[in-house]
Amino acid sequence: MKHFITTLDWSREELQAFLDHAKALKADPIQPLLKDKSVALVFFNPSLRTRTSFDVGARQLGGHAVVLQPGRGAWPMEFEVGAKMDADAEEHVIEAARVLSRYCDIIAVRAFPKFENWEQDRRDHVIKAFAEYATVPVINMETITHPCQEMAHMLTLQEHLGQVDGKKFVLTWTYHPKPLNTAVANSGLIIASKFGMDVTLLCPTEDYLLDERYMNAASEYCSQNGHELTVTHDIEEAYDGADVVYAKSWGALPYFGRWDAEREIRDQYQHFIVDSEKMAMTNNALFSHCLPVRRNVKVTGEVLDSEQSVAIDEAENRLHVQKALMAGLIGD
Amino acid sequence: MKHFITTLDWSREELQAFLDHAKALKADPIQPLLKDKSVALVFFNPSLRTRTSFDVGARQLGGHAVVLQPGRGAWPMEFEVGAKMDADAEEHVIEAARVLSRYCDIIAVRAFPKFENWEQDRRDHVIKAFAEYATVPVINMETITHPCQEMAHMLTLQEHLGQVDGKKFVLTWTYHPKPLNTAVANSGLIIASKFGMDVTLLCPTEDYLLDERYMNAASEYCSQNGHELTVTHDIEEAYDGADVVYAKSWGALPYFGRWDAEREIRDQYQHFIVDSEKMAMTNNALFSHCLPVRRNVKVTGEVLDSEQSVAIDEAENRLHVQKALMAGLIGD
Amino acid sequence: MKHFITTLDWSREELQAFLDHAKALKADPIQPLLKDKSVALVFFNPSLRTRTSFDVGARQLGGHAVVLQPGRGAWPMEFEVGAKMDADAEEHVIEAARVLSRYCDIIAVRAFPKFENWEQDRRDHVIKAFAEYATVPVINMETITHPCQEMAHMLTLQEHLGQVDGKKFVLTWTYHPKPLNTAVANSGLIIASKFGMDVTLLCPTEDYLLDERYMNAASEYCSQNGHELTVTHDIEEAYDGADVVYAKSWGALPYFGRWDAEREIRDQYQHFIVDSEKMAMTNNALFSHCLPVRRNVKVTGEVLDSEQSVAIDEAENRLHVQKALMAGLIGD
Repeated sequence: MKHFITTLDWSREELQAFLDHAKALKADPIQPLLKDKSVALVFFNPSLRTRTSFDVGARQLGGHAVVLQPGRGAWPMEFEVGAKMDADAEEHVIEAARVLSRYCDIIAVRAFPKFENWEQDRRDHVIKAFAEYATVPVINMETITHPCQEMAHMLTLQEHLGQVDGKKFVLTWTYHPKPLNTAVANSGLIIASKFGMDVTLLCPTEDYLLDERYMNAASEYCSQNGHELTVTHDIEEAYDGADVVYAKSWGALPYFGRWDAEREIRDQYQHFIVDSEKMAMTNNALFSHCLPVRRNVKVTGEVLDSEQSVAIDEAENRLHVQKALMAGLIGD
Repeated sequence: MKHFITTLDWSREELQAFLDHAKALKADPIQPLLKDKSVALVFFNPSLRTRTSFDVGARQLGGHAVVLQPGRGAWPMEFEVGAKMDADAEEHVIEAARVLSRYCDIIAVRAFPKFENWEQDRRDHVIKAFAEYATVPVINMETITHPCQEMAHMLTLQEHLGQVDGKKFVLTWTYHPKPLNTAVANSGLIIASKFGMDVTLLCPTEDYLLDERYMNAASEYCSQNGHELTVTHDIEEAYDGADVVYAKSWGALPYFGRWDAEREIRDQYQHFIVDSEKMAMTNNALFSHCLPVRRNVKVTGEVLDSEQSVAIDEAENRLHVQKALMAGLIGD
Repeated sequence: MKHFITTLDWSREELQAFLDHAKALKADPIQPLLKDKSVALVFFNPSLRTRTSFDVGARQLGGHAVVLQPGRGAWPMEFEVGAKMDADAEEHVIEAARVLSRYCDIIAVRAFPKFENWEQDRRDHVIKAFAEYATVPVINMETITHPCQEMAHMLTLQEHLGQVDGKKFVLTWTYHPKPLNTAVANSGLIIASKFGMDVTLLCPTEDYLLDERYMNAASEYCSQNGHELTVTHDIEEAYDGADVVYAKSWGALPYFGRWDAEREIRDQYQHFIVDSEKMAMTNNALFSHCLPVRRNVKVTGEVLDSEQSVAIDEAENRLHVQKALMAGLIGD
């Protein structure tokens, strides 16, 4: 039994096998691969795409999803081992994971960081606790990485570009009125570098570098594939000749928990919005974003509605890759 | 592909075909008409009947419903095209509708008015935006009309009265402590007049007339069927000889957004409650209400529990007509 | 048609038949016993196990569950017959029960006490109202008793002990920072005494005795089986020679609604926590708790994670007994 917590745990070949299965399921979506199986979807944060695509996907494979929202209809939960539970939490993840494992064949978990202390959040302790105590496979529906999104992104790139090796992939930070999770940014960096792309990270300042765990992993993957991870704060340098522009906003890690101070910096970089002028500098690049996206803040409506935009395809591909993942993890 | 946003868009014959199919499905409820299909139920407002009947109905047809509550478990949503999304909304309906269309075969939407500005609310912009950007059929689960309720109401009248043409239909305003949506009132007026009934609208004052869009449509349908739409503020005149009494409360449109002022008027008309004394003036009329209903405020328990009350039948018929609608829209 | 509101309404033989069916379903879980049937799960309070196990259970039997949360996504509800509904409630249980009976084949209800007035709460009026107006079987998912938990508990004891008659069963009160529902305590007392166990109730003071309805029933069941219901405030006396230790916290009934006063008493009995020292006094007793459980407040992690702990088995058995109950109630 193997969990799907982060793609760092999986080889490119293993991930490509899931992608190949996803392509097959996209062509022929109704298959009894999860017949009479149940999947618990545990949401500590909101969702539209993830919830719908897992639910519909389980059903198309003959299975069934149960949506649980701890603290909103289900009990608030404790994660620290050995805690004396005399505060708000009524249930420990030990019991929750063990019990859900008796009812369901897969447990999928969404647990965003708390945005107070990055050293704490980077431990990814919620999903790791589920993985430790569950006796069925656990799937990450976004914590501090978003591996299902990565897979959908890569499937989309392969559909549109064929071979992705050596293509210039630009992950661009964009402005957002709130300091967001780095999960999709971490994931974008990892998947592109692991699959042999020539990766550039564009962000306003050094404060917006991603966690070293993901920077180092991306750097290493790039090296293994004969590239070098490029980090730049120069918009023109980044967009020049890009084959893929992937946009995401995130809060600066050194300011974690001090968001008022961070906001003063962030507010200065609203011009990082993806617009037609920037896209014109690229090699007719594909544009994508994980959704939800704030129109005319992170990207103009013009770019988002253009033929180069594959954001809706990427969202659709969530369905197909997650079906492949569920079937693969259960079949193991 | 055609949406089911308002019955104004559909002919009596087309609607009757749905009703006939609903009658057949009521007799023989398990049919594979939505086999392996998924229906997104997007609720911006609460629901018991609508949520249950769509969910059970999809299942009885071999399909599957996914319940989404934007702002409560799913992302808050923007509807204005071209908006710079720097406020609360994280997701634009353009993306939501396009993405849900990739996952699901039908999108059903409940979006009540905001009750601040009728000129704004009467645009019905939420469901219209879904209809514009979705690439699958969209069904109205109540916005400023409630066409599924209309259909269930008409099915119930046909079951109890047979031919409804020429029967006296009274839509009576009733008191309610809050200023409610006009949707069911608009819908009651339209469906009764479209199906050839002799329609009377009973309301306290001219302030409680419905929007001219629906008043005019009802008036025209009445004319086409050789009747005249009657508007009265006289309780006895309205109930006299009625074959059907349909009760609903709504807020006065000229006072929209100024509800404290409206309340002073509304509070004077608590005697519009449907009771046995009023029902005795009718031609042994059927009574109905769309539910939920406040007992002993809008209607007495005595009337609601009487043999003339068909409110529970009407609620049941929501299931059957919605199954016919889902099957019909997907089959088109 | 018979409801499953409290095990007081059912004989030991009838309950054993459900348990036997549950054992068979545990061995062979996929059966078409609810094929094309729908179950409404009405939650007035949070749930993880109950919601998941009913949902998965219905599905494994070929059926389908609909989760409704009145006041959170569904309309707030009125329960008093004859009420003039001019406050918050938009819907009366009369309509809700009648309408859900038209859509679904079973209605299951969770409705905790309001914790203000025990004389009011002990009427159990929410589920009784559903039972009165529903035209399909109603199942109690926890009100002032928790009969599904009882059944799962008894199934677990039978699995581990074989014949339970004459075994020493200790229901021990434990500390919890909030005054909790007596439901599981009432249920533990009833099921153990009904099935012939030698029952001891351990609680801090006379204030923590359970409602006389359940004390008397347990006492009578004990007498019928040749035992005597023991009540003690002495920890050693209770644990000595026990075969089963079942832990639960609850608020003192004489202080109902005056929880600040009750807290002063409750806070003095934190040493009622189940720990290894106490368990060492038993006859190698099984330990269980209904979950959720606060670790290191009600029971130490050491006991909960020990081989004697059957809490996870009991949670799993919720699935199996509820499937037997649903199938049995519908088949009647």
